[in-house]
Amino acid sequence: MTATTRTRLSPQERRSQLLDLGVRLLATRSLDELSIDVLAEEAGISRGLLYHYFGNKHAFHEAVVRRAADDLIAQTAPPVDGDPIERLLISVTAYVDYVVANYEGYLSLVKGAAGGNDTLREIYDEARSALTDRVFREDAQAGSGLGTIITDTPTNRLLVRGWSAMSEELVLTWHAHPTGVSRDELIAIMATSLPALVAAQPDA
Amino acid sequence: MTATTRTRLSPQERRSQLLDLGVRLLATRSLDELSIDVLAEEAGISRGLLYHYFGNKHAFHEAVVRRAADDLIAQTAPPVDGDPIERLLISVTAYVDYVVANYEGYLSLVKGAAGGNDTLREIYDEARSALTDRVFREDAQAGSGLGTIITDTPTNRLLVRGWSAMSEELVLTWHAHPTGVSRDELIAIMATSLPALVAAQPDA
Repeated sequence: MTATTRTRLSPQERRSQLLDLGVRLLATRSLDELSIDVLAEEAGISRGLLYHYFGNKHAFHEAVVRRAADDLIAQTAPPVDGDPIERLLISVTAYVDYVVANYEGYLSLVKGAAGGNDTLREIYDEARSALTDRVFREDAQAGSGLGTIITDTPTNRLLVRGWSAMSEELVLTWHAHPTGVSRDELIAIMATSLPALVAAQPDA
Repeated sequence: MTATTRTRLSPQERRSQLLDLGVRLLATRSLDELSIDVLAEEAGISRGLLYHYFGNKHAFHEAVVRRAADDLIAQTAPPVDGDPIERLLISVTAYVDYVVANYEGYLSLVKGAAGGNDTLREIYDEARSALTDRVFREDAQAGSGLGTIITDTPTNRLLVRGWSAMSEELVLTWHAHPTGVSRDELIAIMATSLPALVAAQPDA
């Protein structure tokens, strides 16, 4: 509202920066290991200031996980144009690379969501719905999405959800025990699976 | 060692009977809701006797879940002979019916295993390995198993594991939100998916 231009960050920008740092820290540690203390030390600011930004540990974890889920959704967005199978391949590649780069944090989100933490469950479900609903929604927008080969039926919605769970299992298992399968092979397995599953159904 | 024949159960048989009761109770409640008190009341015996059989609550839960996993493995065993696809269909049907009949307990096993309980994780992994390794192992025995259409390669081991995760997601999602897909359709989706996934791979 004044003519003064400040170079310091707004509280909103500062909070956002701290969330990014939290997500980065989550790449190599679980959510349980990501405390306000750890973030304060890495950010070089006081614990008190962090509590000012995030309220409490629970809210801090929720905000970091929500940011991580948003990152995942953004990074795995397929390109707007192009061949549906090619776009699926690009999205799957981004997903594999995201999970590998953020393994510990991703694993703790999966565990926390499955283990009964309601907030984590909600964020996880939102992320998964965003990833799977996208298959159908983008068709309407682009006219060249996967929806052109995967029609929106109850069976296909279930299949896409199942494929999503399969993909998660594949990348987590592969990262833990990579024996005999390369990254490119893994990506090919995942990308070829979805159209194959859809085509195999009796009503396809 | 004596000539006396007693009709009362041996401690081993009594313990086994109590485990069966525990598994039945788990059909409609989570593991957290299955206490020594609940079992004692249902079995009509004292808490003290139950502690005698199982030691503590943790060991009791472990024993019940192990029994439930053994039941699942036994009930979903495909018949020894017959067409591989037909045998897969029978196994998948048994799996769907098992999960539906034991929904709460099954869900709490999945949650507990994913949520970081090491004992549950171990039992869950054993059960899943038994279910997936079976696809390959039975071929060697019967000469007519799925192994005749699914060769034992790193890619196929990964695929079968992924299919197993997908199947779990499908039946749990379907049971929670059955909209538009019948039990028979669900079973057909799961049974057709595995051969389709394998056939779709570049090296198939």
